[in-house]
Amino acid sequence: MSSAQTFSVVDLISAIAPCQEAHKLEAQRRLDNLTKPIGSLGRLEAIAGQAYSIFSGQVPQPLSKAVYVFAADHGVTEEGVSAYPREVTAQMVLNFMQGGAAINALLHQADLTVVDVGVDYEFEKAPGLCRMKVRRGSRNMHREPAMSHEELGQALESGACLAHEARKKGQHIVALGEMGIGNTTAASAITATLTGESIGTVTGRGTGLDDLGRNRKLHVIKRSIKRHFGASSSNPEPLEILRCVGGLEIAAMTGFIFGAATERMAIICDGFISTAAAAVAYAVCPRVADYMFAGHCSEEPGHRHLLRYIGIKPILDLGMRLGEGTGAVLAMPVIESACRLFSEMATFSSAGVSEASPKAN
Amino acid sequence: MSSAQTFSVVDLISAIAPCQEAHKLEAQRRLDNLTKPIGSLGRLEAIAGQAYSIFSGQVPQPLSKAVYVFAADHGVTEEGVSAYPREVTAQMVLNFMQGGAAINALLHQADLTVVDVGVDYEFEKAPGLCRMKVRRGSRNMHREPAMSHEELGQALESGACLAHEARKKGQHIVALGEMGIGNTTAASAITATLTGESIGTVTGRGTGLDDLGRNRKLHVIKRSIKRHFGASSSNPEPLEILRCVGGLEIAAMTGFIFGAATERMAIICDGFISTAAAAVAYAVCPRVADYMFAGHCSEEPGHRHLLRYIGIKPILDLGMRLGEGTGAVLAMPVIESACRLFSEMATFSSAGVSEASPKAN
Repeated sequence: MSSAQTFSVVDLISAIAPCQEAHKLEAQRRLDNLTKPIGSLGRLEAIAGQAYSIFSGQVPQPLSKAVYVFAADHGVTEEGVSAYPREVTAQMVLNFMQGGAAINALLHQADLTVVDVGVDYEFEKAPGLCRMKVRRGSRNMHREPAMSHEELGQALESGACLAHEARKKGQHIVALGEMGIGNTTAASAITATLTGESIGTVTGRGTGLDDLGRNRKLHVIKRSIKRHFGASSSNPEPLEILRCVGGLEIAAMTGFIFGAATERMAIICDGFISTAAAAVAYAVCPRVADYMFAGHCSEEPGHRHLLRYIGIKPILDLGMRLGEGTGAVLAMPVIESACRLFSEMATFSSAGVSEASPKAN
Repeated sequence: MSSAQTFSVVDLISAIAPCQEAHKLEAQRRLDNLTKPIGSLGRLEAIAGQAYSIFSGQVPQPLSKAVYVFAADHGVTEEGVSAYPREVTAQMVLNFMQGGAAINALLHQADLTVVDVGVDYEFEKAPGLCRMKVRRGSRNMHREPAMSHEELGQALESGACLAHEARKKGQHIVALGEMGIGNTTAASAITATLTGESIGTVTGRGTGLDDLGRNRKLHVIKRSIKRHFGASSSNPEPLEILRCVGGLEIAAMTGFIFGAATERMAIICDGFISTAAAAVAYAVCPRVADYMFAGHCSEEPGHRHLLRYIGIKPILDLGMRLGEGTGAVLAMPVIESACRLFSEMATFSSAGVSEASPKAN
């Protein structure tokens, strides 16, 4: 990891400030004076406190919301690890642009940007499509590292740049989504290497593999990890894990998270793939977790291990496993609602409401 | 239960049609053709299917959303069962009208109606306030039935009328909320009697009782149930449970649920109190459950027993215990999102996306 790009990551993360505990306490004091029994809004209060500390005590109203869907192909699809053919990545990007995908139906006034960081297809210029292709798909991790050092650096940098642009556009809260046939294979390999959990534990059926397909996927992941990190995993560097068994969209999301944390934006992770990117970012710089919300808990078995690894708790648990950012955008109204409490709720004294005595009246 | 009002309940529930299984199957067939792996949207698909069957295959877009917060006082507060004084019911109604309560901050474009069915205060006419007072608070269940037959009938009828009016206003999806100091005592008594669970299991700290306060509450509930239904509970009639140990706002919500199901509206229950009303409605007419969504699972311990009794699964689980409809309105965007899938998502063929083969590609 001696390329020029690595230096920019180091510079980038040095600009990430931790969120202040004092802000969380101040938020809780405010919440405790609002016209509701203390603690009665449960996790909404913790979410409000986290947002308050992310925004340094100035929660913007209304929140400007955006979703970034990072798309790339994966060389490892050559090994037959997905229920869908590789072409579906490009087909789905076109579907996003035409408004026909699940994420389009679930946007709820959030701004959608689709980012091509490595799809094996040349897209024409289109509004809402950001063309930052590093390569037409990552390399096949089963045979070589998924990315060269330069490719990794470029993907990370693209993501970070987008986050800076997002802030310039005035966006406050950004959801991560992805599209990439084969990317649960990459995410499973990252998860096993990063968390130390067994490959079998963290590898699921992706978009719908049968037992035979899943066994092939397990075998490919096992061989890939062995090739790059040896039989006994010797705690490889997080960015090296990302480079060898990750993917271009995952790397771009990692870069985006670094950039978004630098800009003090609230970040909502979606499912297994985006949380794999978040876990790499967390492993490099634990402070980023202060800026993260987990939109939901996916059915992909590796996801809950990643959430535990980062130490973030999902807002929703609806048995979803689609990606695209769908679980992240569904959680947006909950976070928005939590933020709105501060600016709209009355205090006991302002509303003339009597306070409680726990001893019963 | 021989009053004139009982007859209208019988008439009312005879007009409730069950939702058709055929509609759910048709919905699933549609969902399976949309551009996403089969089943990958998890519970969102089940929610979409239920909405599709509630609306007889014509899911309106956009959904017109409303929240009805039913408020009443409780005679049993004389026994010292709440952390807050009785006046808070009226104070909070005024807070709702002034926009300072949690429910106001969480509305998300839903229309709010506050319904006074029994607050111990004379409110002036105000937009968004529906004055249907039956009595200035229910009677003290510890000494006599909480309502006379006539009062129960009037509260049920008021709720049903409001539901019919809601439909006339074009509302499709209605969330239930409530405000009433003392009403967790009533809901616990209903829950224990209806489900057969022990009083200790289904009784919590309400808005914040300490151990001593909770013990007093337990004692009052135990004595009240014994007074009305004898030591060995002999399966009393659901509406008789409601009359003896319920409350005016709970009865009005039960009536509202009957009316809303008659009108084929989607009903979102909130926490412990509104679900107690829903459980009574379900006990009288199990078909109403077809029209119900459980917005969330409250921290009040009796709530999960009621959800299991009715057989509905909460959408959110965020540790909330406030009432007012807060958990129900938070779930609205999830239900709306599920409904939008049908009208906005492309099919595999319309979008030109290749389909899956579970054997891996």
